[in-house]
Amino acid sequence: MNFAIIGGDMRQLYVCAALEKRGCTVTLFGFEQCENAKSRYRFAAAPEEAAAGADCVLLPFPAENERKNINAPFCCTEIYMPDVFSAVKAGTPVLGGKLSEGMMECAARHKIQLFDYAAREELIIKNAIPSAEGAIQIAMEELPITLNGSNCLVTGYGRIGKVLSAMLSALGARVTVSARKAADMEWIRFHGCQAVETGALSGQIGDFDAVFNTVPSLIFTQELIEQLPEACLIIDLASMPGGVDFSAARRAPRKAIHALSLPGKVAPATAGEAVAETVLNLLKETGLEP
Amino acid sequence: MNFAIIGGDMRQLYVCAALEKRGCTVTLFGFEQCENAKSRYRFAAAPEEAAAGADCVLLPFPAENERKNINAPFCCTEIYMPDVFSAVKAGTPVLGGKLSEGMMECAARHKIQLFDYAAREELIIKNAIPSAEGAIQIAMEELPITLNGSNCLVTGYGRIGKVLSAMLSALGARVTVSARKAADMEWIRFHGCQAVETGALSGQIGDFDAVFNTVPSLIFTQELIEQLPEACLIIDLASMPGGVDFSAARRAPRKAIHALSLPGKVAPATAGEAVAETVLNLLKETGLEP
Amino acid sequence: MNFAIIGGDMRQLYVCAALEKRGCTVTLFGFEQCENAKSRYRFAAAPEEAAAGADCVLLPFPAENERKNINAPFCCTEIYMPDVFSAVKAGTPVLGGKLSEGMMECAARHKIQLFDYAAREELIIKNAIPSAEGAIQIAMEELPITLNGSNCLVTGYGRIGKVLSAMLSALGARVTVSARKAADMEWIRFHGCQAVETGALSGQIGDFDAVFNTVPSLIFTQELIEQLPEACLIIDLASMPGGVDFSAARRAPRKAIHALSLPGKVAPATAGEAVAETVLNLLKETGLEP
Amino acid sequence: MNFAIIGGDMRQLYVCAALEKRGCTVTLFGFEQCENAKSRYRFAAAPEEAAAGADCVLLPFPAENERKNINAPFCCTEIYMPDVFSAVKAGTPVLGGKLSEGMMECAARHKIQLFDYAAREELIIKNAIPSAEGAIQIAMEELPITLNGSNCLVTGYGRIGKVLSAMLSALGARVTVSARKAADMEWIRFHGCQAVETGALSGQIGDFDAVFNTVPSLIFTQELIEQLPEACLIIDLASMPGGVDFSAARRAPRKAIHALSLPGKVAPATAGEAVAETVLNLLKETGLEP
Repeated sequence: MNFAIIGGDMRQLYVCAALEKRGCTVTLFGFEQCENAKSRYRFAAAPEEAAAGADCVLLPFPAENERKNINAPFCCTEIYMPDVFSAVKAGTPVLGGKLSEGMMECAARHKIQLFDYAAREELIIKNAIPSAEGAIQIAMEELPITLNGSNCLVTGYGRIGKVLSAMLSALGARVTVSARKAADMEWIRFHGCQAVETGALSGQIGDFDAVFNTVPSLIFTQELIEQLPEACLIIDLASMPGGVDFSAARRAPRKAIHALSLPGKVAPATAGEAVAETVLNLLKETGLEP
Repeated sequence: MNFAIIGGDMRQLYVCAALEKRGCTVTLFGFEQCENAKSRYRFAAAPEEAAAGADCVLLPFPAENERKNINAPFCCTEIYMPDVFSAVKAGTPVLGGKLSEGMMECAARHKIQLFDYAAREELIIKNAIPSAEGAIQIAMEELPITLNGSNCLVTGYGRIGKVLSAMLSALGARVTVSARKAADMEWIRFHGCQAVETGALSGQIGDFDAVFNTVPSLIFTQELIEQLPEACLIIDLASMPGGVDFSAARRAPRKAIHALSLPGKVAPATAGEAVAETVLNLLKETGLEP
Repeated sequence: MNFAIIGGDMRQLYVCAALEKRGCTVTLFGFEQCENAKSRYRFAAAPEEAAAGADCVLLPFPAENERKNINAPFCCTEIYMPDVFSAVKAGTPVLGGKLSEGMMECAARHKIQLFDYAAREELIIKNAIPSAEGAIQIAMEELPITLNGSNCLVTGYGRIGKVLSAMLSALGARVTVSARKAADMEWIRFHGCQAVETGALSGQIGDFDAVFNTVPSLIFTQELIEQLPEACLIIDLASMPGGVDFSAARRAPRKAIHALSLPGKVAPATAGEAVAETVLNLLKETGLEP
Repeated sequence: MNFAIIGGDMRQLYVCAALEKRGCTVTLFGFEQCENAKSRYRFAAAPEEAAAGADCVLLPFPAENERKNINAPFCCTEIYMPDVFSAVKAGTPVLGGKLSEGMMECAARHKIQLFDYAAREELIIKNAIPSAEGAIQIAMEELPITLNGSNCLVTGYGRIGKVLSAMLSALGARVTVSARKAADMEWIRFHGCQAVETGALSGQIGDFDAVFNTVPSLIFTQELIEQLPEACLIIDLASMPGGVDFSAARRAPRKAIHALSLPGKVAPATAGEAVAETVLNLLKETGLEP
C-alpha cells in the first residue's frame, strides 16, 4: 500500500517509519527543513507528485495551521489544501487529524473522501498513555519530592484521567480523583483511589503536592487555586483554553504548567505507531484498503 | 533537641527543614554561598560556634570532600575535621554519611562518638525510592517511546532493583530482572517480572528498549553492550566506577548514562526527610537522645 | 426515615442492618421462618402494618417469585402485590429489584411511585465486586492449582469482566479478555491483559486453566468447549440461560458451573450495604427523602 | 532419570506427574488404598523393589509419621525406614521433607546421602503462594463481606506474610502488616500497606474484618483477641502450635481457624510441581544428577 504523507512535524516521520515497518511504501512532502529526515525517506518534489501515486493521503494532526493551509512546520512554503485535493486520484481516501469545517467543505467540493483519524476512540485511548506518562515526567522534574508517597489530585475521569490515576497509584502516590457521575465514583474507588465530586472540590481541597487537570472547562478558579498548598504544582492537560485560571495561579502564586500535545513531545515514536495503527484500522473497517 | 548541620549541599537544607518540622532547633554552618538558604535559617559564624551548643552534630553525605575536609560546596573556605571535632562537647554524638577510615581515626583521637547514618538499612531502602523514580524520569526524558509497553531489563535485585522493577511493571513495562540467587528468581517471578541469571545474560539479551544496571561490578561489558538493540538506552545506577563499560558504549554506539546520587538531585525534599528520620531513629535506638 | 422491608432472603436482613447503621428505622415482614432474624429486628404482623407507617417500602431483588407474588422465601404465606400497594400511603415510594411489567402496571393502578434499584448503574458496579470475588472463590475451590501463574480467560468486558480480570491479574494469573469493541481492546491491554475478539475465539483458545463467561448470550458452544483443555474449569456468571452450552460441557466432558446471584451468596453483608446505599441515593436524587 | 516415590499423600501423585512431564520415570510404593492412583502410575510390590532400580528415592513431606515410620497414609502396612535405606543402591540420594534427627542418624548408619528438600529457600517461597491463596479462599468462604474494601491484618513479614499482604492489597483490601525490623517496615509501606510493630499491636488493634497470623509464636493472646471486633475472623497459618490462643478465641468468642498444610490441600498440583522442580534443582546443584 502506498501512502503520501504531506506536512506535519517529527511525529509524522515516526508515522512514516511505523507504516514502512508494516510493509507500506511512503512518499513524503513538506520536510525540507528537517535535518533528521533527509537521508532516510523518499521525498516528492511537490505535494501533487506525492499525492498522485498514493492509495491514501495522510495529513498531520492537527491538519491545518492558523492560516488554514496544511500544517507543515518543516516546509519552506505554504501547502494549499485545494492543490493537494486536486491532485488526489478519484476514490483515494484522505485522512487527517482534527479537521475543520472549512477543510471538509473543500474536500466535498473536490469529491474527496476525508476522514478524521483523531476522532477515533482507539487513538484517543492510545494517546492517553503518552499524555499520562508525559504528565508524570513533568511532575517528577518539577517536584522536590517523589511521587511515591505524595498526595495527588486528578480532576476528570475520562481516558487521560483513568490512565493517569492508575499510573500515579501504581507508583505509590495517594490519589484522589474527581468525577461527576456516580458510576465513575464507584470505578475510582474500585481502582484504589479516593473519589470526590468535581462540583464539590471547593472546601475539600486537601494537602496536595500536585494536581492534574484533565477537564476542558474552568475547574481551577482563583478560589480553588488559593485553597491549594503553596508548594503544590498544577499541571493542566486539557486542550486550549484549558481548565486553570493561569493568571490567578501567577498571582497566588502557584506554579502552573499548561502541558499540551504531550504524546508528540514525550513519546513521538509511540504516538507515531498509534497513528499508523489507527489509520490502517480505519482503512480496513471502511473497506478502503486497496 | 539542638542540631548543628555543618557542610553539605541543598539536601542538608531539606534535612534542616525536616528536623525543624519535628520540633528540633538547627544551627547551620557552611552555606554562605547558597542564595536560597540566606533568609530562612539560623547560621553560626564558625563551625565551632555551631558545634558548641549542639546535642548532635550532623555532617553531610558524603561527609568528606576529595581533600579530606568536610564536604561543604556552599562554604567560602575549607572546614577542617579536627576543628569541628575539637569544638564538640564531650558526649555529643556526631553523625555523617559514608565515613572514611581517616575520619573515624580522627574522631577516635578526639574521643568523639561518630556514627554513619548512610550505612543504616532503613535509609538505604528509603533512598531506593527516589533513585528508582529518578531512573524512570531519565528514561522518560530520553526515550522516544512510553515506558508503558516497553521492554526493560533491570540487572540486580537489591533494594533499587526491587523498587525499580516494581515501578516499571506498575507503569505497564514488560520487565526482565537479572539476579543470582534462586530465591530472588522466585520473588522476581512472583512480582510479575521475568527472571534471568545475571551470569547468563549474554546470549539472552532480548529486544530491550532500556536497561537499568544496579550491580556495582562490571555487568555491561563490550560483548553484552553490542547485543543490545541500537536504540536501547543504558542507565547505570551503580556507584563509581559503575557496572557499564562506558567507552565500549560510546564505540558501539549505545547511549549510556551514569546516573549518580539521584535522591539528592531528583527529590531533595524526600531525601532530606529520609535523612532526618533516620538520624532521629539512630539517636533513639542508641540512647543518645537528650 | 422509616423503612418497611417486605419479603426477601438473608440479604434483605443485611440491607436492614445497613439502613439501621445509617440511622433509619426498619420494620420487616415476611421473615417468620428465618431463625437468624427472630430476635434482632422489628417485625410487623402483616404487610399492611409494615407499609402503613413507612416513608419508603422496600421489596426484594428480584421482587417477584415465579407465582407473580412478592418473593418471600422465609414467609409462611404468599404476599400479594395489590395488598401491599393498597396499604402504601399516598406519595410513599416503593422500591424493588428487577421489576416486571405486571408489577409496574399494578403499581400504576394503585398510583404508586415504583422504582427499580437493580437498574441503577452504581448498584450494578457495586455488585460486580462480590460477583468477581465469588467467581474467584469458586475457581480456588475447584482448581488443583493456584490462580497465581494460571492461564485464565474472561469473556466479556462489562462491569464484571473489568473487575474480575483486574482481580485475577492482581493475583498473578495470566489473563486473556475477550471483547467486541476496539476501545475495550485498548483498555484490556492497558490493564496488562491480552485482548482477543469475542467473535474470533474459536481457533485461538489456548491452554486455559479456567474460563469465566460474563456475556449473556451463547459464547461457549460445543465447538469452543471442545477446544478447551480437559482439565479446564468453566464458570458461567451470566444470568439465565447463561452463555455456556451446559449439555455439551457434560458430554465433552468439561466441568462447568453456572454461578448465579453470587453477591447475595458469597458476601451478603457487602451486597446488603450496596442495596442500602443505592436506595438512599435514589431517594435523595429523586427528592423523595422525607 | 528414575525416581522411586515411597509413601506420601495425594500431593506425591502430583509430584509423580510433574516428574513424568519432565521426562523422568517414576515407580511408586505405598498408594494401595488410593483409588485415584490405581490405573495411571507404575507401582512396585515392595519399597525395596521401588528403591532398587532408582537413581533417586523420594520420601514425602513430612517424611515421617508419628510412629517414626515413613508417612504413608494410603499404604496398608507400615513402611520402615531401615528397610528402605537398606534397599537403596550405594551413591543413590534420598530426599525427604522435614527430616528428624532420628532419620538422619539412621541414614548415616546406612551410609545414605539424605537431603531435606523442605529446607530449600526456593520451595519455601514457592509454597508461600498456595498458602496465601488458601488463606484468601478460607477468608472468602467465611466472611459475609468481600475482601475488597475490607480491613485486614497480617502478622509477620516472612515469605507468606509478603505474598499474602500483596495479594490482599491487590484484591482491594486495606492491609496492615506487623513486623519487627525497621527495614521490613519500609518495605511494607513501599508495597502500599500500613506497618505496625508486632510488639506494639496491643492497643493499636483497629477495626479489622480478618487477621492472618504467620508468626510461629504466641501473638494472639487473650488480651489481643479481646481487642478484635466480634465479627473478626482469625486465620492462623503458623505451623503447630501456631500463634493464636485458640481457647481464648473460643471464650471471647472469635472465630479462629488453624489452617495448616494449605499447599497440599488447596493446590496439590501446584504444590507437586514445586516439589518436583525443587528436587531436580537440588540434584543438579549437588551434582547428583545421573
